[in-house]
Formats: sequence, structure tokens, C-alpha cells
Amino acid sequence: MPSYTPPTRDLAFVLHDTLKIHEADVPGYDELDQSFTSAILDEAGKIARDVLAPLNPVGDREGCTLKNGVVRTPTGFRAAIDTLRDGGWTGLDCDPAYGGQGMPNVLASAVGEMFSAANMALMMYPGLTHGAYSALHAHGSDAQKETYLPKLVSFEWGGTMNLTEPQCGTDLGLIRTKADPQDDGSYRITGQKIWISAGEHDMADNIIHLVLAKIPGGPEGVKGISLFIVPKFMVKDDGSLGDRNAVSCGGLESKMGIHGNATCVMNYDGATGYLVGEAHKGLRAMFTMMHEARLGVGVQGLSQAAVAYENARAFAQDRVQGRAVTGAEAPEKPADPILVHPDVRRMLMDQKSFVEGGRAFALWAASLIDRSHRMDDADAEGLVSLLIPVVKGFLTDKGFEAAVSAQQVYGGSGYTTEWGAEQFVRDVRIAMVYEGTNGIQALDLVARKLPADAGKHAMAFFEIVKAFLKENEGDAALKADFLDPLKSASKDLQAAAMVFVQHGMKAPNTALAGAADFLHLFGHVSLGLMWARMAKAAGAALAAGAEATDIYRSKIATGRFNLARQLPATALHLKRFETGAEPVMALVAAAF
Amino acid sequence: MPSYTPPTRDLAFVLHDTLKIHEADVPGYDELDQSFTSAILDEAGKIARDVLAPLNPVGDREGCTLKNGVVRTPTGFRAAIDTLRDGGWTGLDCDPAYGGQGMPNVLASAVGEMFSAANMALMMYPGLTHGAYSALHAHGSDAQKETYLPKLVSFEWGGTMNLTEPQCGTDLGLIRTKADPQDDGSYRITGQKIWISAGEHDMADNIIHLVLAKIPGGPEGVKGISLFIVPKFMVKDDGSLGDRNAVSCGGLESKMGIHGNATCVMNYDGATGYLVGEAHKGLRAMFTMMHEARLGVGVQGLSQAAVAYENARAFAQDRVQGRAVTGAEAPEKPADPILVHPDVRRMLMDQKSFVEGGRAFALWAASLIDRSHRMDDADAEGLVSLLIPVVKGFLTDKGFEAAVSAQQVYGGSGYTTEWGAEQFVRDVRIAMVYEGTNGIQALDLVARKLPADAGKHAMAFFEIVKAFLKENEGDAALKADFLDPLKSASKDLQAAAMVFVQHGMKAPNTALAGAADFLHLFGHVSLGLMWARMAKAAGAALAAGAEATDIYRSKIATGRFNLARQLPATALHLKRFETGAEPVMALVAAAF
Repeated sequence: MPSYTPPTRDLAFVLHDTLKIHEADVPGYDELDQSFTSAILDEAGKIARDVLAPLNPVGDREGCTLKNGVVRTPTGFRAAIDTLRDGGWTGLDCDPAYGGQGMPNVLASAVGEMFSAANMALMMYPGLTHGAYSALHAHGSDAQKETYLPKLVSFEWGGTMNLTEPQCGTDLGLIRTKADPQDDGSYRITGQKIWISAGEHDMADNIIHLVLAKIPGGPEGVKGISLFIVPKFMVKDDGSLGDRNAVSCGGLESKMGIHGNATCVMNYDGATGYLVGEAHKGLRAMFTMMHEARLGVGVQGLSQAAVAYENARAFAQDRVQGRAVTGAEAPEKPADPILVHPDVRRMLMDQKSFVEGGRAFALWAASLIDRSHRMDDADAEGLVSLLIPVVKGFLTDKGFEAAVSAQQVYGGSGYTTEWGAEQFVRDVRIAMVYEGTNGIQALDLVARKLPADAGKHAMAFFEIVKAFLKENEGDAALKADFLDPLKSASKDLQAAAMVFVQHGMKAPNTALAGAADFLHLFGHVSLGLMWARMAKAAGAALAAGAEATDIYRSKIATGRFNLARQLPATALHLKRFETGAEPVMALVAAAF
Repeated sequence: MPSYTPPTRDLAFVLHDTLKIHEADVPGYDELDQSFTSAILDEAGKIARDVLAPLNPVGDREGCTLKNGVVRTPTGFRAAIDTLRDGGWTGLDCDPAYGGQGMPNVLASAVGEMFSAANMALMMYPGLTHGAYSALHAHGSDAQKETYLPKLVSFEWGGTMNLTEPQCGTDLGLIRTKADPQDDGSYRITGQKIWISAGEHDMADNIIHLVLAKIPGGPEGVKGISLFIVPKFMVKDDGSLGDRNAVSCGGLESKMGIHGNATCVMNYDGATGYLVGEAHKGLRAMFTMMHEARLGVGVQGLSQAAVAYENARAFAQDRVQGRAVTGAEAPEKPADPILVHPDVRRMLMDQKSFVEGGRAFALWAASLIDRSHRMDDADAEGLVSLLIPVVKGFLTDKGFEAAVSAQQVYGGSGYTTEWGAEQFVRDVRIAMVYEGTNGIQALDLVARKLPADAGKHAMAFFEIVKAFLKENEGDAALKADFLDPLKSASKDLQAAAMVFVQHGMKAPNTALAGAADFLHLFGHVSLGLMWARMAKAAGAALAAGAEATDIYRSKIATGRFNLARQLPATALHLKRFETGAEPVMALVAAAF
């Protein structure tokens, strides 16, 4: 059975040695000294390890069941949610005005990684609720906020996001769900939504559905979409629960993974709904919370890679099979631990260098969100807008790849349910799809984020890389292993970006055919930058005579591996990118 | 629900236009004119499509059950096996002396791809039986052959291969199963075997287990392993079945995929066994059939990619979502089919170019096996020995990747059980693990096959590439898109091979740390070569005024895509390879 070892030491290294959050001038960060964050991370890590992780295989095995409209979640899920609720974890980064803890995103993301790693399916229930909280916090009326937010923050009530319909996933312009205005100012919502995560469950007294629908007579396509609150139970003026609303779960999806989360067909049969924000501006309201939601999915991808790596590493240190080619390393045993074999190490180093680099990247993005939200810093907002599709797309594509690689370390055991490695693979697979497929992330990156403000934010990213290179050019320890490869990879990224600048609008298919490669190129350079920063931080700690030197030495070696073996992928992505649209578009549709 | 469209036209293109098997001087190939192979492929394709494919989701859903020692296979599996048995398909390439059809491997592999694509889990039952047939055919005594082979050929009896034990997978030297000699010349077999595919089932009257065990007092390690026949029911002298032998299924493995195949714990409690071949030479007997078995697993990888691609393509042509960026292509519909989007095409072209290139590669290898077996051609034997780990490792790694990419085309639907895309991913995943993990394939390639006969077979491969380039150097149509990139990629492969020649023995960790990259490098060049050959064949057909030109034009465009966008991966693999062992081995074991 898999276990979970919280990476609290590594998170502290990222937060304090690398990002130095305690020194940053972001309001609220002054609290985040190392003893404070340690206390939070240690406590969260214990819950992840002792409460959430043991339920992960249970959720996978039992799944959810639907009977007479009632969804039952797996054994123990409800009690685990109680633990999170009682500890205030469901509102960790929520507004204190509604009962939240008011912590910055950077800390909530660090905690979120551990919770998701331990049990991704379970954490989606509070995750979706948090999404509903964010949308209402940004766009709800004061009365709506008063009514709903405190209950969502505490997870007394759950929340959901209802976008997809059978005929429309990515293309929301095709939505058919109808919202008929009523005399009392409410709407009657009629339609079917599918793939609604946590759409119905037994863990909260009420569920607040946020539903995209069209008010008849409104504009065509995405410009005619509005956002509605549809509570499962009507809420009376005094806040107590009234009648059941005309919304029900019509079915549960059978799926590859995240079995512990109920993926529901939701039927709205003239349900009472309340408009959120302005009519026809629903999509904008939904997109408000997109940054955080997409960062959250990127962290999910990373989290499954992290727990998969951690378990594969333990397996490789324990399982004996064959002998090291350079001579027995455990002669007292019938064979050596498989960690001695270079190919097993290669796989583990791929995983480790991705996980630790990705962790730093995600937390850097989270710190930019904090800067943007808490300081109204438009540059931070612009930069993080650019990075978010990379965080989501790269960390989930590579997170899946790392989980598959971790599974491979086990040999045949990795294919059996017993060891748990295959569950991480099945669970993390969804992260490449939902909250916008990774193809959509790439499209968002090249068509929207890159050209935004005349390319200003991409320039800002390149400036960060350049400044780092310049600032450290005299550092001989960093030069060959970190600075030179980063410089070369960054040039590949700039070369690709120039193609967009020069041809983007004239040849849209070229941009779109190369979008996924561009996203990966960007991801590799981002991780290269994070590794260079971490190597510098580790070197500084060693130079300062740090007591426990293992983690710093390990950081430098792991970073070297990443820049030597992963970062050169930028040249391949650039090469593919430069082939343009022709090879991709050459075939007529019928020839596929 | 997924469907299966047999690629009979494409198989014919590989067999006849590209490999020109009907012109080859291999005994038995003279029969293989296009009308003959068409008849076989059409018939096999119909069985795959109509009999096997509909049972694929059934097998996944129902799985196998064990009750009172009896394993029940999924609904319909037994009837499907009857169809295969009645049509003589289970003995397609078996020796006519024992009731087989005597067809060459190249044709059996083409048929095998279709059968595996349609239902991989089901086809493992005859697949394992075929493995037992091959081992006994090569190493059994005449009496053993007479007794067992006709029944295995017809699948009246099933067969299994018993290697793995709880403490030993890859490292067979650790085997503990014991074979005590008896006065009558038989042995008493005692021990536990795990992960025995098709170890127990309800589809055959008897099951012939081939079991690796150690005769007490024999040499230590792999040199003391012998091979035994252990029938489920004892076979009387007249060939009729006698008492039940002391072998039983102690449990079924719960696993990620291939649910329709029973993966058994097999308990041998003093079961009667018969030595096959010489004592202590069991491993050699097992390895005899390794080429064919590993080719078969490579074909499994390819087959799942093929059926996954085929279904993803159909989805992309049908599902409408969004509009082409260059203007609506289906203005009469609410949106365009998603095939118009460059990123969707990119994914489909990745899959298509892998599937068609991989198919040609596998069938080329199969034709070399035929040449080796039927002509005692030592050069063919040497070359195919070198290629087999590439076929197995590359076609299963990339086959998995292609199945994941196909799943991605569906968006959210790909994650649901309903559409079947996720089953292909789960099923094909095992092919990267069994019959020697892909890490073992890479090790076999660099440590055994590459240096064999002083590197003669690798040189032969390079000569084939060089001869092709030379022979076609005046062909302007091939030059830029095929010859130049192939030449460049082949140079990368030669550069890596030179490192082995120069440093291989002195720095074994360098070779082993780079083994997986070398295997992939080799795989890319092999597919590049096959694509160049196919492009030439397609060009020749067009020049000769072929009537149906679509397939030929599609071949050239798909090949161009492969060489432009996939083949350049050789440079990345070479670069990784050249970093050597240091980055991989730098961390101390405790730092993982």
C-alpha cells in the first residue's frame, strides 16, 4: 500500500531559501516567517499523511454510488472533511470577513499540494467549493456574499461549477441551458449539465451550484451567457434551509480515475436560480477565478508526480533485484536494491528533478497571484496571466509523465492495484483535460497571453532570466551547469516567440500548430530558471556554513541533472515549432 | 462505444508495396501474393471487428472471477476463442506437422496486430499458449511434442509461462521453486509463481504450464534453472486426461488493465512435472522464443495505438466544437468538427505517423525472423536480434504515448469509460513492463546485442540506411523531406554507437545510464528508415499511374510529418546520452 511523506522540508526550501517570501513586501507576507510556515506545513502534512492518504485507495476501490438521487461518497470521506472543516483548512486563504483564515495563496498552494498528493479525489470536494467561493466573492452582491460565503468557507455547504453540456465542452457558445426570468427577480433554470465534479454528495448540508445558462433573447454565443446560483435546498431569509430545489443528480460518470469524486450529470428542471453579477457577463465572472483554478490543477499534476515519485523511491531502495554493474553494493543481501541500476536512477531523477522544479515554479506563480491581488500590481498580474497556462499545461503533462515513470520503476508491481502506483497515473490523467484541456492552455498562451499588451509580459519574463544571468555571471559554480544551459534554452524560447511576433497574425495556423511545443518550451525554461535560482540558494546556504548540508547538495545535483538532461528539450520543441503548420495541416480530412 | 476498423489496406501496402514479400526468396513467401494475403487479412479483420472488438469493453468491465479454484472469463470470451480455434487461427504460423497452418511470421504478425487491437486481453490466452508451443517445439522431446503440440496448436489445451515469483521478477537467479527428482523420471514441483497470465481459465480442457524451477544440488543462480511441463490435468498414455495435478490458482491479481485476462497466483504443491530439454538449461529454452514473444509485445503496443488512433480520428471528424481559425469549414453546423483545429491535427498526426511507421517496422522485423528461421540466415538472425529490443521497447513506449494522445483528442469524453479511449491506455500500459521491462530491453540492446559479433549487426543496420540513401540520392522528391533528415538522424545514432564502442566496457554506468535514450534513438531512426522506404514505394506507385491515389499521397504527407517533427528527437536523445552517467549517478542513495 502506498504511503505519503509530506515534503515539508522541501517546501520550506522553496518558500524561504528560494522565493524568500518572508522578505517580500507583499501585505500579509510579514507573518510568514519560517517558524510560522513550518507550523502550518507540519500540521497540514500530518493531516495529509494520517487522515487523507489512507483513504486514497479506499476512494478508488469503493467509488461513489447513486441511489434514489442520493450520492454516497466512500467510507471515511465525510469524517476526513470534518477534520479539514474543524481545523479551518477549507477556508485557509479565504476572506476573514466571511470566516476565512486570510492566508496568502503561496501558503495555501503549498498546503494544497500536500492535500492533493494525499487524496486528489477527496480534495476536489473542497476544491470546487473554493472555486464557487471565489466566483461569488468577486461577482456576487453583498446579500449573496452574506448568505453563501460563510457557509462555503466552512464547507458547511459545498459548491460546484456547471459549465459543460453534452454538446458543448470547450465551446461554451453552444450552451443550451435556459434561464427564464421570473416576476420575483429569480430565474427558472432548465437544462442538463454533465461532468459536474462534486455535483451531489453526502458531505455538506447544502450544495450551491454555479450554473452557466442563457437568458432567452440575449446575444448569441458566448456573449449571451449568464451565471446563476442554484442552491440544492432553498435558503430562507434567516439562512435556514427550505424546500428542495428542482435540481437533481441524474447519473454518475464511470471514469478512468478520481473514483472517490462524484462526477455527476445534473438535471435542472425549472430550478430556481439567482443571477450573479450582470446578465450576459457570466463567462467573465467564471473566468475571474481561472488563474487560481488553473494553478490549482497544475498543482494537482505536480502533487501526483510527487507522491508517485516518493513511493517509487521507497520501492527502489527496498526491492532487491540484480547486482550493480560496478560490483555488489549490498553483498549481504541476495541482490542489490534496484536503485543501484542506472536506468532506475534515470527514471527517479527525471521524476525528482521535475517535482522539485515544478514545485518551485507553482509557488512562484502563487506568489505572483498574491502580489497581483494584494498589491494591485499590474505587472505581476500580467506576468502570472502569461505563466498560468504554462503552469497548468506543463505541470499536468509532465506530472502525468512522471507518474507513469514512477510506475515503471516498480516493474510488474506497478501494474497491480496493490501498490497504488497505477492509481496515481489514472487520477492525474484528468488534470491534462479539465479546467481547459492542455491544448486550450497552449492556445490561450500563444493567442491571448503572449500578444497581450504588445508582448510586454513575455518581455518581462525574458528580462527576469536575463537579469539572473547577468547578476550571476561571475559565479563560476553556476556558470557551466546552470547559467550557460539556461541562456541557451532561453534563446530557443525567444526565437520561438519572435516567430509569433513576426507571423502570428498573418499565419494563425502556424501559431496554433506550434502552440503545444511553445508551451512546453516555456515550461522547460521556467523550470530551468527555478533550478538556477534554487542552485544559487543552495550554494549560498552551503557557503554560509549551513548545518544540515544534505538537502543543499542534493538540490545542486538534482538541478544539474535537470539542466543537463531535461532542459535541452527546448531545441527539439523549437525545431518542431519551426516546421510550421504545413506538415500538420497537409492531409485532407478524409485521409485521416 | 469504440469500434474497430481493420487496417487491411495499410497492411497490404506494407507487405506488398514496401516489403515486397511476394518477391522475396524466403521459402513459403511465394504463396504470399496479394490476393492470398488479402483473403487472409480480410477474414481476420472481420473476426477482429465483429467477434473480438465488441467483447473488449465487456472483458474490461466484467474481468475474471475466481471461485473454488475455478476462474471464469468474461461473457463471450469462450465463444470467441471457439471461433478462432474453428478457423485455425490459433495455429496460423505453427508447424503443419502438428496441425498448424505453417504461415510465415510476417503474415501472422499482421493478423496478430488486428486481433490484439480488437481485444488485447482475450488474445493473451492464445498468445501465451503460442509461447508454450514455441518453447516445446524447440526444446521438447519427440514424445512431448507428440503429446502436447497438436493440442496447443488447436487451443484445445492452453499454455502458460511461469517465471516470476514474489521475490524475483527480472532477476531470475533468485528463483526458489523446487523440482525434486522422482524415481520414475518425473519431478515434484513445489513453489509459488505470480503474475501468470492465463494461468487458469475456463476456455480449454487442459492447461500446460511451463515452469522454471531449480533441481536441488544444481548450480547457483540462473545457471541452475530448469524448465518443466506441469499439466493441470495429468495426460494418460493414450492422450486422454487423468487426475488433477497438484497445481492450483491461489488468487487473481487486481490490476490497471487487461481485466479480461486472468493474472494468476499459481501454487505448485508437489505437482508432477516433466523436464524439458537438459537440466539447468531452462533459461536458454525460455529465451529461445524470446524474439517472437518480444516482437508480439511490440505489436501489442502498436495495436493499441492503432485502435486508439482510429477511434480518436472518428471522434475528431464527428464532434463539432469551435470554428477553424481560418474561417468556418462546416458553416451549416453549429460548429466545425474538431479535426479543423491544428492542435487536434498535431495529436492525430503524431499518432498516425507512429502507427503506420511502427507497423512497417514490426513487419520488417517479422520478415527477418522468417528469413532467419526458414533460411538459416545468420545475418538476418543477427540483425533481428539487434532490432527486437527496439521493436519491443520503442513500440510499447510510443504506443502508450500514442494511446494517451488519442485519449486527449476526446477532451473530457476520453476520461470516461463510455468512449473506450481510457481502456486502450490502461491495457497497453502493461506492454512496457512484461516480457522484460523496457529498461531491460535497453540493457539487452546496449550490453548484449550491440557488442555482439564485434558490432557486426549494428554495422549491417547502418549499411542498410547508407545503401538506401545512396541508391536514392538522385531522387529529388525524396531528398529534402526524407533522405536528408534520415541521414542526419542516422549520424546521431552512429555517434552514440561510437561512444559504446570506445567506452562501453571501461565505463559501464555510462552505457547503462544512456541505454534508454539509445533505444529511443534507434527506434526513431528505424521508423525514419521505414518512412523513407514507404515514401519511395508510394512515389513509385503514383509514378506508375496507380488508380486509387489517396493512400499514396497520404503516405507521403504522413511520412513527411514524421521526419519533420518526430525524427529530430534523435538529437535530444544523443545530447542526453552524451551527458554520461555522472548526472544520473551523482546523488547518494539516501538523498532520493
